[in-house]
Amino acid sequence: MIAQTPEPPYYAVIFTSERTALEEGYEETATRMVALAKEQPGFLGVESSRTEIGITVSYWKDLEAIKHWKMNMEHSVARAKGRTDWYSTFKVRIAKVERDYEFEK
Amino acid sequence: MIAQTPEPPYYAVIFTSERTALEEGYEETATRMVALAKEQPGFLGVESSRTEIGITVSYWKDLEAIKHWKMNMEHSVARAKGRTDWYSTFKVRIAKVERDYEFEK
Repeated sequence: MIAQTPEPPYYAVIFTSERTALEEGYEETATRMVALAKEQPGFLGVESSRTEIGITVSYWKDLEAIKHWKMNMEHSVARAKGRTDWYSTFKVRIAKVERDYEFEK
Repeated sequence: MIAQTPEPPYYAVIFTSERTALEEGYEETATRMVALAKEQPGFLGVESSRTEIGITVSYWKDLEAIKHWKMNMEHSVARAKGRTDWYSTFKVRIAKVERDYEFEK
């Protein structure tokens, strides 16, 4: 679903990844991380899609909220597992959303 | 493929969408738009994935490059067709990438 974010400015974390063939624990951890992220202060929304590559964009109130989420213990354990098991490569971009607009039929 | 972008700062256009059931012309136009975007001044890369929602993130040198691309005639025609035919809803976010980091096995 398209995230219903407030008026800019706010922050986006663009996480682009390619997976390994290892499935064990991946889906449940991904689902759990979304649920956990939603509980964090400053969380504004998340959008995710995976075909050849996966793109997950999470939205945050400010850099402080992103830092706080990065330091979450369960998230840190999941990220370590991401490097050893689930991802062959990924890129993280932290970006300040300056403008947005939408269209609905 | 994960886009090989230069050192920040640069800009990201995050385009998140939900499709209608209308297929006619969609795939060929999407492919053509990527090819056309790549020819534009200031284009840095693009990443795209579609499952329940589609997420396309294109990267640009600066706001001027984004504006120039938006004004491209063929792109404008395609965007109009997107509103009438291909998308039930979409959101566009323009964001300044301040930091990035990557991981490779």
